[in-house]
Amino acid sequence: VTNKKITCLAGGVGAARFLQGLVRVFPEEWITVVVNTGDDIELYDLHISPDIDIVTYTLAGIVDEEKGWGIRNDTFNCFTMLQRYGYETWFNIGDKDLATHLYRTEQLKKGISLSEITAKLARLHALKETILPMTNDEFETRIITDKGEIHFQEYMVKHGMQDNIVSVRFAGAERAKPCQEVINAIAEASGIIVCPSNPIVSIGTILSIKGIRRALKETKANVVAISPIIAGTVVKGPAEKLMRSLGIEVSAFSVADLYEDFLDAFILDNADKEQKERVEALGIKAIVTNTLMKTVEDKMHLAEVALSCL
Amino acid sequence: VTNKKITCLAGGVGAARFLQGLVRVFPEEWITVVVNTGDDIELYDLHISPDIDIVTYTLAGIVDEEKGWGIRNDTFNCFTMLQRYGYETWFNIGDKDLATHLYRTEQLKKGISLSEITAKLARLHALKETILPMTNDEFETRIITDKGEIHFQEYMVKHGMQDNIVSVRFAGAERAKPCQEVINAIAEASGIIVCPSNPIVSIGTILSIKGIRRALKETKANVVAISPIIAGTVVKGPAEKLMRSLGIEVSAFSVADLYEDFLDAFILDNADKEQKERVEALGIKAIVTNTLMKTVEDKMHLAEVALSCL
Repeated sequence: VTNKKITCLAGGVGAARFLQGLVRVFPEEWITVVVNTGDDIELYDLHISPDIDIVTYTLAGIVDEEKGWGIRNDTFNCFTMLQRYGYETWFNIGDKDLATHLYRTEQLKKGISLSEITAKLARLHALKETILPMTNDEFETRIITDKGEIHFQEYMVKHGMQDNIVSVRFAGAERAKPCQEVINAIAEASGIIVCPSNPIVSIGTILSIKGIRRALKETKANVVAISPIIAGTVVKGPAEKLMRSLGIEVSAFSVADLYEDFLDAFILDNADKEQKERVEALGIKAIVTNTLMKTVEDKMHLAEVALSCL
Repeated sequence: VTNKKITCLAGGVGAARFLQGLVRVFPEEWITVVVNTGDDIELYDLHISPDIDIVTYTLAGIVDEEKGWGIRNDTFNCFTMLQRYGYETWFNIGDKDLATHLYRTEQLKKGISLSEITAKLARLHALKETILPMTNDEFETRIITDKGEIHFQEYMVKHGMQDNIVSVRFAGAERAKPCQEVINAIAEASGIIVCPSNPIVSIGTILSIKGIRRALKETKANVVAISPIIAGTVVKGPAEKLMRSLGIEVSAFSVADLYEDFLDAFILDNADKEQKERVEALGIKAIVTNTLMKTVEDKMHLAEVALSCL
């Protein structure tokens, strides 16, 4: 690492946990996080950006760690009343959390871009890191189930990942442009870390934005990814179901394979050490270590290993 | 009272207190409340109708009686976070209360009228009374102070009634039409009660809507008003300051005088019994009794007295 700028590609919970470790071993002000916005949804006339909020709240130290989203010690009084008013309330919103959605929605209506709003919110939470949405344009991850097409949040939260997945559609990917800051952050970084996030609906969405994948191929920086798959399964979220439904082998190796065209190094769990050779056969340096992040020490260790690849 | 329908004209806190008594001595389903919307304000991109909410929450039995507005046992977590996000937060909004504003705003955006939304909210709170906004059109009570013109809520809440009032302007009064249901409720009532509300910015606004004053003059029903002024002062709110600034004598008599063209009976407090003759000289029946509503019994007594005039 020469100029010390690190750019991370991130989804929600898994990425946020990794970033908790990274900010403890690397200067916050040199970290840029490019966040998936495919989960964004309009509910109750509010624009909700779940992954941006998880990353922001986590870096601000106010995330509800038990839930993995939202703000610690939040109440749900507005939400309960909305329920009484007949709203579909499958998407939980805490009262403090709601202020973020009100702020974002009001600013968007004023014509301010999501990236500017995200930066403002980061400043309001006194963050030194830079947080960037992957795009300021409309983009929606749609899950095509055997019963029809639904928003990713409906699949995950409303239906509790119970529907059979036929395929995944990135609505808006054809037109969506990356934020210029995202392309710059990839081009100018001294190292790039792909966080242990869902390779389809968190990192896959980011990679589907025109120009981002090419920027990752062209950057001089080394790119390292951490496998979100451990022993053929995931700690949280729908990656396993999604990969299986799409006919992708559910393994750490598959994740490396999905990133093969731009990846320099790949970190897999001790449980998957037998896949090291397969990954290296792709021309990617493979590092085997503990990737399960239970303690702060686990997170810091994983961050150190990732940094050592850059 | 023959057909038993009672229509009340109402502002916020004072009217709500009176209605608490009325619903205990008269069937709720025969009560229609026409509510002032001059206090309505857009804040944080939400449409807030303070008087409609006070009346609705009061009749639903969930009002915060100590504050006089909002919902009992509410939290203010969203509000506190909005403050952190740099919003002007002089207008307090509880978390439960916020749900009402979100609902109203979303419905208005869908093109649903304020009167329909008000009726829906009343139903959602299981009210049997009919609550009607005075108008579905834009209307804003503006206070012209010696420092400039401000919204009534800014005068009252933000500036704590400290500015010197030059005059009052009802923005929108020229164009605002009454809800048809309001005209019907006045024409078809067997009795009409003007609640002890501010005669300028609560009842005065209602009377400024084209057609309402005429309907009150033309209705066959008796109209009784309760004085909000007791011994030259008010229990709550800016009536005293407003009347003085507008060169109106601050007295119960003045209130009767303001309603003289449509009033049949007027209830004044024991403390103002010496004004009985002046009121009767206007051709209005005057009833002297206790009008200070401290207990439920006080409220019920006042409601009984009002009903006895109809």
